[in-house]
Amino acid sequence: MTFRFQVNATDGYARVGTLNTAHGQIETPAFMPVATQGSVKAIAPDDLKTLGSTILLSNTYHLMLRPSIQVIRNLGGIQDFMSWPGPVLTDSGGFQTFSLGRLQRVSEDGVTFRSHIDGSEHFLSPETSMEYQALLGSDIAMVLDQVPAYGLTESQVQLAMNRTHRWALRCKEAHSRENQALFAVVQGGVSTDLRLESAYTLMPMDFQGYAVGGLSVGEPKAQMYEIASLMGETLPHDKPRYLMGVGSPEDLVECVGRGMDMFDCALPTRVARNGALFTHHGRVNVDSAPFREQDRPIDEHCDCYTCLSFSAAYLHHLFKAKELLAYRLASIHNLRFVIRLMEEARRAIECGTFDAFRNRFLSEYRITNENVRRSQKEKWFQRR
Amino acid sequence: MTFRFQVNATDGYARVGTLNTAHGQIETPAFMPVATQGSVKAIAPDDLKTLGSTILLSNTYHLMLRPSIQVIRNLGGIQDFMSWPGPVLTDSGGFQTFSLGRLQRVSEDGVTFRSHIDGSEHFLSPETSMEYQALLGSDIAMVLDQVPAYGLTESQVQLAMNRTHRWALRCKEAHSRENQALFAVVQGGVSTDLRLESAYTLMPMDFQGYAVGGLSVGEPKAQMYEIASLMGETLPHDKPRYLMGVGSPEDLVECVGRGMDMFDCALPTRVARNGALFTHHGRVNVDSAPFREQDRPIDEHCDCYTCLSFSAAYLHHLFKAKELLAYRLASIHNLRFVIRLMEEARRAIECGTFDAFRNRFLSEYRITNENVRRSQKEKWFQRR
Repeated sequence: MTFRFQVNATDGYARVGTLNTAHGQIETPAFMPVATQGSVKAIAPDDLKTLGSTILLSNTYHLMLRPSIQVIRNLGGIQDFMSWPGPVLTDSGGFQTFSLGRLQRVSEDGVTFRSHIDGSEHFLSPETSMEYQALLGSDIAMVLDQVPAYGLTESQVQLAMNRTHRWALRCKEAHSRENQALFAVVQGGVSTDLRLESAYTLMPMDFQGYAVGGLSVGEPKAQMYEIASLMGETLPHDKPRYLMGVGSPEDLVECVGRGMDMFDCALPTRVARNGALFTHHGRVNVDSAPFREQDRPIDEHCDCYTCLSFSAAYLHHLFKAKELLAYRLASIHNLRFVIRLMEEARRAIECGTFDAFRNRFLSEYRITNENVRRSQKEKWFQRR
Repeated sequence: MTFRFQVNATDGYARVGTLNTAHGQIETPAFMPVATQGSVKAIAPDDLKTLGSTILLSNTYHLMLRPSIQVIRNLGGIQDFMSWPGPVLTDSGGFQTFSLGRLQRVSEDGVTFRSHIDGSEHFLSPETSMEYQALLGSDIAMVLDQVPAYGLTESQVQLAMNRTHRWALRCKEAHSRENQALFAVVQGGVSTDLRLESAYTLMPMDFQGYAVGGLSVGEPKAQMYEIASLMGETLPHDKPRYLMGVGSPEDLVECVGRGMDMFDCALPTRVARNGALFTHHGRVNVDSAPFREQDRPIDEHCDCYTCLSFSAAYLHHLFKAKELLAYRLASIHNLRFVIRLMEEARRAIECGTFDAFRNRFLSEYRITNENVRRSQKEKWFQRR
């Protein structure tokens, strides 16, 4: 088995680790850019290498609908399809089935839903999710989970959690692909009791990694951090911990400090396409007036292609003129920002200075503009 | 004076030359990608270098409206603004004033028009066009011309041509920027008499280069080729000849054979964004069904990043899924196709085999799908 994880250094709950997969090695903590439909929006594989990205996430739900699992399999699997030679993690399809698809029926067997693209009916079960992820050929597969909306009663969250546990076991039994690790997903909403119950139920099943699902969906940040802390204390020390859907700079630093190793989020690229760029002193909107004639780059501390090559004024112009190049340059910058943040976190942990690193970063970094579009995910959760 | 042109080889009317400018050397025949608003759509300067692009065109009309000549000047000129270290040719603004702006008044003095962006009123004269192009700091400036629509009477075309001649003289008198060459524009529609009159009027004014304007605007191809032939026979042998707005692969090859040295056109990138890609056997629509599962690249003879890295099936998927990456990858391919075509033409001319090269290319290359959107330019000319 190629898959291997080891912790190389710790500092408080924060850890530096090495994850080996069939397609390469990942230093953790690691941020995974999201290639929802087999492409990180506006970004090519050569950009990703330059950015220092070591692993991507792609979505089984989207790929099964378009271009279809079979097409990707015929083209050699998800890595060959995207021309990305490195590791790939696929999610189970569960989350998008609930949030994007037009849900038809959820039963113990699985989920029947209609495609958000053409309305066609599809079925996803623990077994078909394992089959699809095996055909995609990802390095890390995720179990199918039932994701409860934020704000449901504790007993409703518990029902979904219990089903998630039964589905996890069925996934483990159905999973057979060599060189593909399988991670479980801890659910339980914002209840510490349920989260502990979920972790203690899944840990004896001996998965190769443990994800924390259903967070960053509109709950107060304090609750998210509380659950992350609890999971950092509880989940196995010798296995990777993946906090799903989290990726704002401040949340990444906070949750690395709570013992999380892997993260994915569409936020850095999504807000980039709206002109919201991360800088060491907070998020700024480059299409706003102060940048109209700024000859300096958007962030003078940044080593990305965008900041090394272009003034903030040029980016401002590209956004105002709706030039396609704007979206690539902004996405390169935000992705490099969070990937470099993880590089700096690893160095700080190795030096035993993580607390100082976190405190300095958080005191300098402020979200200076909150008027950025909320994510689809948050909107969905809050609609319910 | 840095500007220098020399012809190094000829084969029939076709020529290979070297053009020296303040920002670098250009081998001709050369295709100039169009950075309309200071950005070649979906393409960054590092892409352009990889593609083998040696000179860009940018539009004074667009830049004066957004972000403004003054902003670009404050940021160090058009090259620094775009972070493109190579040569840049700016057009005069005349063409877009007539085709895009809401025209108010044309007088002997100049053109008053309203911006297509916000309706604000602007004035462009031979003198202000020279001033703006000097502030932009391009390597080659163009005289302001009055562009007649296709289908006007010969006497209307003649009136516009005569004014173009008077404006050319005023441009020459107003032009003072060091290290910036000034090219005249031959007008006269599809009349060979008027074209000859225009060329013989402008040649004694001793410009550093001569452009042929007002072609590829909806006239039959045979007429365009006839005028190109006439100009190849007439215009000075020792000065560069620039055929404006021409850039389909077949027109490039035909007009290189007629003695033209420089070309610009938005067509390669515009049709790319619609999924129409050039291949050695013609133009294909990559979003059509035959490409859904094609594991081979779109053109196996191509050395561009897109063809070296991705299957046609992946491009097909990106277009179907409306992924932003599609536009960049397709634009890279089409630009590389025409730039390589010019490289091959230069080698053929040097070897004295241009006729064989042209015949082979044209017999293999067919436009297999004519259902590609007509250009804004053609639409405008045909509306009138």
